[in-house]
Amino acid sequence: MTSPVTRPEFNPPGFEDVLAARERIANHVHRTPVMTCATIDGMAGASLFFKCENLQKVGAFKARGAANAIFGLDEDEAARGVLTHSSGNHGQALAWAAGRRGIPATVVVPSSAPAPKKAAMRGYGARIVECEPTSAAREATAASLAEETGATFVHPYNDARVIAGQGTCVLELLEQVPGLDAVIAPVGGGGLVSGCCITLRAQSPETLLYAAEPTGADDAYRSLAAGRVLPQEDPRTIADGLRTGLGDLTWHFVSRDVEAVLLATDAEIVSAMRLVWERMKLVVEPSAAVPLAALLSDPGRFEGKRVGLIFTGGNVDLERLPFTPG
Amino acid sequence: MTSPVTRPEFNPPGFEDVLAARERIANHVHRTPVMTCATIDGMAGASLFFKCENLQKVGAFKARGAANAIFGLDEDEAARGVLTHSSGNHGQALAWAAGRRGIPATVVVPSSAPAPKKAAMRGYGARIVECEPTSAAREATAASLAEETGATFVHPYNDARVIAGQGTCVLELLEQVPGLDAVIAPVGGGGLVSGCCITLRAQSPETLLYAAEPTGADDAYRSLAAGRVLPQEDPRTIADGLRTGLGDLTWHFVSRDVEAVLLATDAEIVSAMRLVWERMKLVVEPSAAVPLAALLSDPGRFEGKRVGLIFTGGNVDLERLPFTPG
Repeated sequence: MTSPVTRPEFNPPGFEDVLAARERIANHVHRTPVMTCATIDGMAGASLFFKCENLQKVGAFKARGAANAIFGLDEDEAARGVLTHSSGNHGQALAWAAGRRGIPATVVVPSSAPAPKKAAMRGYGARIVECEPTSAAREATAASLAEETGATFVHPYNDARVIAGQGTCVLELLEQVPGLDAVIAPVGGGGLVSGCCITLRAQSPETLLYAAEPTGADDAYRSLAAGRVLPQEDPRTIADGLRTGLGDLTWHFVSRDVEAVLLATDAEIVSAMRLVWERMKLVVEPSAAVPLAALLSDPGRFEGKRVGLIFTGGNVDLERLPFTPG
Repeated sequence: MTSPVTRPEFNPPGFEDVLAARERIANHVHRTPVMTCATIDGMAGASLFFKCENLQKVGAFKARGAANAIFGLDEDEAARGVLTHSSGNHGQALAWAAGRRGIPATVVVPSSAPAPKKAAMRGYGARIVECEPTSAAREATAASLAEETGATFVHPYNDARVIAGQGTCVLELLEQVPGLDAVIAPVGGGGLVSGCCITLRAQSPETLLYAAEPTGADDAYRSLAAGRVLPQEDPRTIADGLRTGLGDLTWHFVSRDVEAVLLATDAEIVSAMRLVWERMKLVVEPSAAVPLAALLSDPGRFEGKRVGLIFTGGNVDLERLPFTPG
């Protein structure tokens, strides 16, 4: 028997799936604004266009993929509910989307997950099941819950429905800002970058796609160099949304269409994050600042270009901010 | 001889001055977006529309009044430069606008002003002159500088050009959101509220105008109750932009058109500010959160209404935020 939490087949989505996703989620997610900042443009020597998914429902682009998965279920599947494992924005997004459709959602979280994140998921109506903070415990717990409930498992990124949903983000960006020379998206598991690959290839093949990653969680960088998926080992970065590794589905896209993986240190990430808070007055989480951090650490590459950067989310703990003096 | 830092005559601006200001500053300031938040609407039991002047140039609506004053100077006046006293957003705004026109600006700041604020004004090209932190020292220093330089004094709020400039904010809001039942603006010196009075009276007289004030700096509340301007004595509030008192010009408008002054405690202000950061992902300064804080402390008054609230600014010291636990 196939594990219910493993995709049974390799099914990379196409641009028609992105278009269907856009239709499906239109009444549920925001068409987020694109913002610019003259000061940061001056520092970068380029024209930067920030797609503000921190202003998205649940504070992150993850609402797109989750809504696409939830609202694409048929009635029977929907009645049995959905299941995922995530201590981050995907868990909240799936809980939110399930609540909107009025179906049950179960989220497996490591016992080490911060209480506010669990509270937020419960606030959307999800059932939280805690497990030991290991991937073996997580998989086992999810598999047993899937068997128990018959719920549909929705992986945070290695899932065709999720990837297609994330592809709607850059689709909007292309409409909002014509003539982009490049797009830079953070890469963790690769769901957003995969969605960008599909949409850019179909709609704007001349736009180069870059993935941006913390130096302390550089599996995509190393994988691209090696030509095969290398695991994310012992990630150490403040960018908590980017500690996951690529999956086979996201690797398919990343290895095919990503021009380069750009790196940023945690110090550069915090500095870029602070710049955005101070000059743009936007709350972005560390992961969301990684593309800007990477660009500012290597500005020559983008000099004079029109570059789209995705502010992926704005979910931070205001009581633990990295802006301490010194 | 009339003191150069006192207006020689009482000259309240009219709506034609607001329209002229809009024309004059159009190429210099942002038409800021209006944002909404379903969660906060739910808490308020009303439809709230937030005019995001925290996203304005220099991070505050003050850019409007300053730009109107600066770009309204004739060539001779401009050549002699401008002068003000302010340790806050007006000082930055005047420095910025003067820099844009390429004319000298001098800002008198109390020696107690935070170093980053002085650095920001210098960054825009202004000359900073420090004085003892008393109003007598401030007036004397400004008067002597005015005599020395022949610069035009631009008061932070008790100035017809500044008031007319601030009136453009709610003019945009009315275009962006038709059918507002009420507008709530923070009141410190009253420049923004005065501009709102002029524009609402001319364009939407059925929209009620409320001023919102910290309980620890409640001179406008007490003045309206007394029927005459009472001084701001020993203000104690986290809302540093609202520690000033009304002037004769702003009292003219506040006493004429403000429906009521609403109050909020510092605890309510911090709580509202946190709500905006967490749910709207916008950096707003304490003063900017006062209207929402006041509304949420007395929601019955606005139940079911369409209410415009002005997020006046987003300039905060990220190293000293009030979101400490407990």
